[in-house]
Amino acid sequence: MKEFESEQKTGHAAHLHCVLPASLRPFSDANAMTPHLADAEQKLQRKLKPTLKQAIIDAGLKDGMTVSFHHSFRGGDKVINMVMDVIAEMGIKNLTLASSSLTSIHSPIVGHIKNGVVGKIYTSGIRGELGEAISAGLLKEPAHIHSHGGRVHLVQSGELSIDVAFIGVPCCDEFGNANGTQGKSRCGSLGYAKVDAQHAKHVVMLTESLAAYPNHPASITQDYVDAVVQVEEVGDPAKIGGGETRLTSNPRELLIARRAADVIINSGFFKQDFTLQTGSGGASLAVTRFLEDEMVRQGITAEFGLGGITSTMVALHEKGLIKNLLDVQCFDGGAVDSLSRNPNHIEISANEYANPSSKGVAVDRLDVVILSALEIDTQFNVNVITGSDGVIRGASGGHCDTAAGANLAIIVAPLVRGRIPTVVDKVLNVVTPGQSVDVLVTDHGIAVNPNRPEVKALLEKAGLPVFDIEALAERATMLTGKPAPIEFDDQIVAYVRYRDGSVIDVIKKVKE
Amino acid sequence: MKEFESEQKTGHAAHLHCVLPASLRPFSDANAMTPHLADAEQKLQRKLKPTLKQAIIDAGLKDGMTVSFHHSFRGGDKVINMVMDVIAEMGIKNLTLASSSLTSIHSPIVGHIKNGVVGKIYTSGIRGELGEAISAGLLKEPAHIHSHGGRVHLVQSGELSIDVAFIGVPCCDEFGNANGTQGKSRCGSLGYAKVDAQHAKHVVMLTESLAAYPNHPASITQDYVDAVVQVEEVGDPAKIGGGETRLTSNPRELLIARRAADVIINSGFFKQDFTLQTGSGGASLAVTRFLEDEMVRQGITAEFGLGGITSTMVALHEKGLIKNLLDVQCFDGGAVDSLSRNPNHIEISANEYANPSSKGVAVDRLDVVILSALEIDTQFNVNVITGSDGVIRGASGGHCDTAAGANLAIIVAPLVRGRIPTVVDKVLNVVTPGQSVDVLVTDHGIAVNPNRPEVKALLEKAGLPVFDIEALAERATMLTGKPAPIEFDDQIVAYVRYRDGSVIDVIKKVKE
Repeated sequence: MKEFESEQKTGHAAHLHCVLPASLRPFSDANAMTPHLADAEQKLQRKLKPTLKQAIIDAGLKDGMTVSFHHSFRGGDKVINMVMDVIAEMGIKNLTLASSSLTSIHSPIVGHIKNGVVGKIYTSGIRGELGEAISAGLLKEPAHIHSHGGRVHLVQSGELSIDVAFIGVPCCDEFGNANGTQGKSRCGSLGYAKVDAQHAKHVVMLTESLAAYPNHPASITQDYVDAVVQVEEVGDPAKIGGGETRLTSNPRELLIARRAADVIINSGFFKQDFTLQTGSGGASLAVTRFLEDEMVRQGITAEFGLGGITSTMVALHEKGLIKNLLDVQCFDGGAVDSLSRNPNHIEISANEYANPSSKGVAVDRLDVVILSALEIDTQFNVNVITGSDGVIRGASGGHCDTAAGANLAIIVAPLVRGRIPTVVDKVLNVVTPGQSVDVLVTDHGIAVNPNRPEVKALLEKAGLPVFDIEALAERATMLTGKPAPIEFDDQIVAYVRYRDGSVIDVIKKVKE
Repeated sequence: MKEFESEQKTGHAAHLHCVLPASLRPFSDANAMTPHLADAEQKLQRKLKPTLKQAIIDAGLKDGMTVSFHHSFRGGDKVINMVMDVIAEMGIKNLTLASSSLTSIHSPIVGHIKNGVVGKIYTSGIRGELGEAISAGLLKEPAHIHSHGGRVHLVQSGELSIDVAFIGVPCCDEFGNANGTQGKSRCGSLGYAKVDAQHAKHVVMLTESLAAYPNHPASITQDYVDAVVQVEEVGDPAKIGGGETRLTSNPRELLIARRAADVIINSGFFKQDFTLQTGSGGASLAVTRFLEDEMVRQGITAEFGLGGITSTMVALHEKGLIKNLLDVQCFDGGAVDSLSRNPNHIEISANEYANPSSKGVAVDRLDVVILSALEIDTQFNVNVITGSDGVIRGASGGHCDTAAGANLAIIVAPLVRGRIPTVVDKVLNVVTPGQSVDVLVTDHGIAVNPNRPEVKALLEKAGLPVFDIEALAERATMLTGKPAPIEFDDQIVAYVRYRDGSVIDVIKKVKE
């Protein structure tokens, strides 16, 4: 709020009495770089936008640019559809949509592809109608399916250059300081959004409530935020924990979980200060509860639980069995509450979590990770992206990141699902290479990757039902019969990107 | 810890059955980007270096590169001399030394300039023997004196490209998660170091203690750290608060502080939720205590105190008079304790604090800042870098950053120091342009910048002793006599960089 005084300006320039090197320029005005300081209202409120449309206009969004979102509200997200609808109304076309993931709630994107608003997609997961439409060849360019760690690598390497990041949060102050643990619709950790905030050219916060300055703790800080716009709702927290993160009561899933716990306990990695991650999926999440008894019995505590944090993990943390929780994403409301309450429940960014080109990621420190699979083949390659009909209906997530980092990567899956085998000779699509997968636990027995003979020996010694994976595949085929092969067109509808950016597989259009 | 399996590799590459665009490469191996995952020890301990020398070797430090440091230990710093000595022993030459500031404890750098190890310096401040040596023309290139906010701008704009950052901390885990609030020699906020960690090509943590993983809260996180080396001591916390941050008992300083408080109270900015920063310097720090009574009397609380946080600020915070403390640097042990204890005492980076090209800085939200001066002239230009003899013995610090951002920038200074006038016709060197300075408070009266007539009217109405600044300058000269002008050589020994990177002044060699 200082006015420019020309005589002072010339005074300074004149009194240098010297020739500056070409790389240096003389002082001109105190606010040359900060014109907003000359206006008392602009100083404080220049980021506040009256409408989402105004925020998009001021962001300079144009045809062909890249917009990003986070998926921390999972099935409860309300931001992506809201923003894409406004963008569509504004007539902006041919955007690259880069959400850290997409769920079945995002079916309206099908319409935005059809009307030319969205030309390209980067995401970890695609489900529902959108998956069906993309599998049917609707996108003019193949979608890019990345892992959570791989996404950060693509952003940092420049391939995925975000022009405008739209970040939905329950609370934010007028300068942009935001978190996911306070306010009405709380999603907890903003682990994915932190990366977008840091790297996007322009960052728009969509917030339900305008908090008093300085809003803190600030998961995203003011120095990364260009604009703040208040909206009615950013998400439905009740739907964060829906679907893939529910706790199972299915007896078969519980049997698998019990066996997976036995595998961990006898693997050689179950010792004081071991570390653990459970992926989403009923059996995977249920493993935790079976570990608890044995941890208490043996007096073993875990150094940290990582991930996708669930209420089950929180319960073990609050009982003192898991010392720290490293949280890139809360999988349910219990985790959200814990993050706001427990000092050793720590929010981490996706760059701290899993980016292979990061200087240090938590997945590298994992002893054990428990992961799901839609299919696994006799080379231990895992498919978590396409269903048995070849249609996209899953998510890469942290699957290949954690499998690569962990000392023991365990896949839990039923041997067959309905009339469809899970263990097969060759997966339809590879997301995680067999090289990174160590043990498969099914309801019909356990298989150990031949590259881990020491683990196999320990499990056999413990009397667990260990088979060759080929035997499990045969048993699956025996139960279901050999399914007719799916016929594909030559058209590539998606690239499956490995965490290092390489293409580990392509997904082709299903023949109609 | 997964072994490479060549048959899987070729299997994947073969089964893509398509031609990839040139921008995409096929998957080769799960650990192609992460070879450390193939070695159980490397996975966890690859960052740990047995000696500082080894850390420097592994950092690839070479002649002509730029090394950086933070100054959070101020006069107690032990890292800069330690590291520079090892670098000198290794025979590396012609480095650019970029410390966020330097103090009189860093006199040994004079030797490193003489032997060719240091060829160029970027810093906020220079004192003692080093200041004398540089003023005498010892450096082959002029030093660059920047503000705290301006330093971040120089780093982000690429002019100051840090090759290796050496960051001293009391505690750090083997992956690099570090803070300044736990351990033996605690400096508190790592506000300056955060910027270096984020932008340096290679980051070496020097830590007194190796904390258990995950060390938290993590002011600097593992994803920014390349190497960790344990050292005996990184700093003497007792000396953080020495010198410029002590509380004064000098009656003249107390008189000035009392008057400055009166200025604030009557300025129009003393109202509910006002915001405040006090710079270093006895009178500046003492203002806070005089404000306290009036805050209580009028029932006014401050939204935040910013800065350089002192025990005085902490006391007001803990009494509920200042709601939040935004802390880029702890000025004493009381502030360090508070940062580790008080949830509303918030650590901020220099990019959140003061960088003019940041998307949002706290200085822009300041109502009042109280700053010191070595000299101030009748144009309100302020010198905080050179003494009355023209020799470098001060620091730019956050002076011009806060003056530009604050609604009311108050300079507190005695009219004369010994036989030397503080208020002069023309300062020897300009650090903060008069355009940003609003009020001068001396022991002989107050002057208001003509560009703030509304403030002048309010102070006069309150009966405060307001004079034209020319009258104060005349009075100073009357008391001291007109000092003989200092004679300078043409050689430029330092550029004074304004916060936006422009050169606001040059410091010339003093004639011997």
